[in-house]
Amino acid sequence: MFTERIYNFSAGPSILPEPVLAQAASELLNYGGTGTSVMEMSHRSKDFLAIFEETKALLKEVMAIPESHEPLFLQGGAWTQFAMVPLNLIGKTGKADYAVTGNFSNLAMKEAKKFGDIHVAASSADENHTYIPRQSDLDIRPDAAYFHYCDNNTIFGTAWDYIPETGDIPLVSDMSSNILSKPVDVSKFGIIYAGAQKNMAPAGLAVVIIDKSLAGNEPSDTPTMLSYQTMIDKDSMHNTPPTYNIYILGLVLKWIKSLGGLQEMEKLNVEKANILYDYLDESAFYKACAKPEARSIMNVTFATGNEELDAAFAKEAAAKGLINLKGHRSVGGMRASIYNAMPKAGLEALVAFMKEFEAKNR
Amino acid sequence: MFTERIYNFSAGPSILPEPVLAQAASELLNYGGTGTSVMEMSHRSKDFLAIFEETKALLKEVMAIPESHEPLFLQGGAWTQFAMVPLNLIGKTGKADYAVTGNFSNLAMKEAKKFGDIHVAASSADENHTYIPRQSDLDIRPDAAYFHYCDNNTIFGTAWDYIPETGDIPLVSDMSSNILSKPVDVSKFGIIYAGAQKNMAPAGLAVVIIDKSLAGNEPSDTPTMLSYQTMIDKDSMHNTPPTYNIYILGLVLKWIKSLGGLQEMEKLNVEKANILYDYLDESAFYKACAKPEARSIMNVTFATGNEELDAAFAKEAAAKGLINLKGHRSVGGMRASIYNAMPKAGLEALVAFMKEFEAKNR
Repeated sequence: MFTERIYNFSAGPSILPEPVLAQAASELLNYGGTGTSVMEMSHRSKDFLAIFEETKALLKEVMAIPESHEPLFLQGGAWTQFAMVPLNLIGKTGKADYAVTGNFSNLAMKEAKKFGDIHVAASSADENHTYIPRQSDLDIRPDAAYFHYCDNNTIFGTAWDYIPETGDIPLVSDMSSNILSKPVDVSKFGIIYAGAQKNMAPAGLAVVIIDKSLAGNEPSDTPTMLSYQTMIDKDSMHNTPPTYNIYILGLVLKWIKSLGGLQEMEKLNVEKANILYDYLDESAFYKACAKPEARSIMNVTFATGNEELDAAFAKEAAAKGLINLKGHRSVGGMRASIYNAMPKAGLEALVAFMKEFEAKNR
Repeated sequence: MFTERIYNFSAGPSILPEPVLAQAASELLNYGGTGTSVMEMSHRSKDFLAIFEETKALLKEVMAIPESHEPLFLQGGAWTQFAMVPLNLIGKTGKADYAVTGNFSNLAMKEAKKFGDIHVAASSADENHTYIPRQSDLDIRPDAAYFHYCDNNTIFGTAWDYIPETGDIPLVSDMSSNILSKPVDVSKFGIIYAGAQKNMAPAGLAVVIIDKSLAGNEPSDTPTMLSYQTMIDKDSMHNTPPTYNIYILGLVLKWIKSLGGLQEMEKLNVEKANILYDYLDESAFYKACAKPEARSIMNVTFATGNEELDAAFAKEAAAKGLINLKGHRSVGGMRASIYNAMPKAGLEALVAFMKEFEAKNR
């Protein structure tokens, strides 16, 4: 029973900025003098459309999205994108290439096989996804309709340290667990997509940023809700979008802007991650799982090398208000997800606990 | 600028019970001493799973869902169901039959044409959907894989006053705008589905109640997220479900239960609707649009017969805190959506305004 808010290291759904939650709570029954909750507003109403337009404009501004690209606010999570990407893009050649660097990129690749000839252009499975393949290792077919990779691997705690060069082949990236954590040159991508439940908003919203010239090639029997062209034409409102999630995303974007935008966000995230990585590199008790050049600044995986100690660590940490530190079963050990909203003090509290736990169990 | 909450007659997203919103606001930053918001909880966490299980159990209890049927908590709204229903059910014969009694049933029918041989078993288009076809008018093919109808037509303000008899042919019903408004014999249905944003929760959740014996017949290239069987097998958690919407649905179900369940809800809804219909039947100034036997207790459509007066009505009502009364463009006039959460006082305030407006403009 905690009377105050605690440090939540959940991989997703995950921590949201406290000022965002406080504002949402304060206007939950009556938003801006409308006499209604945002949850109760028609998506076609003047009041909600103002929220929608502001959120879209903020996303464009914060991510510096070029005019060639359109942000879409969809449903169904990244998993629906695993199907939408091939359904909409594979048409031209029927072929697409995937890098497999973790659980979700592997699932995306398998789902795509329903829709065409899929080739694994690179994989890090040989070393349990502790590293990221180099550019020279990417075996991309010249007639691939697109190349897909997952920029940050939530479970394994790795992130791509470069944007793959693919020439004319459109680049598609799942950025579910690191979107808005750093500046990205959107113009290099055909599609960036992300489930919102890590750095953006509550679960139930998926953001897609698409080069408009790629849309419109889906087969005629594609479900309407899975057509990017329809969603572009209808400005994400072919049907009722997840309105409240979009509103929270707007508050999160305002919060990011108030902190100085994505450049400042990246600086803060690197600083926070280094508090943990520096300690892991010093310690002989804990070991970081990901190879140094592949380390994620969003999800940090580590272990003591002793399963019983790992279990005790997660349990004792939780009792002290440092929750959800148990690693995913495919990696074991611990995982600290330290998204944008995790304050520096959370990292300091975690490292203080790690030192204490080490002293007791060394 | 309203300092108090007002009467919101929006067709959807729409009014939610004020006690539900108040509770959500009070525990938005710290739910039940967990030190986190429900928005921040992993869908696999003990705390969220308790919310999920309770919500599912409450839905089963309140709707008296038999063991043969499974409630699913999905995304993508009713529009995604327009494709999922044929994709998953049409396999056996490749044929399905639809009743067209309004805008959404027409759209569902058109979407289904992508997946098979679709036949319009009945239509009320000849009289602008002001009535509901009789059982004897339903021309259902003996080899139809299912028969689909929309139980309540939001735009036209009509509702089916009977459950169609289809023998062995599974009955599929879109109940987006009247689910939880009255008791329904779920055992008579193959599938009941509903977008949550009217009587259940904020937009972004779709509830599907499916006879489990109907699942598992989708083609092998069906997107995983569009497979009922997958969602049954994974208890709606093939990926992250819309967690916060599910939490609000749980609060709404508790509120319904506290009022006496669906029998009491129907009694209250009929009483509320009759406040408006009784006045419409008395008045020579306003006219109800739907035929008496087809009248919805959720959406009431009416008009003065003069477009300028109708526009003035909606505008003047809004200024007095009676908002979203403008009718849909395909019907014109006015529409009052009076879902479960609309208090009786809202109807009394509306009729008082109508009398005043009539006196001024007669």
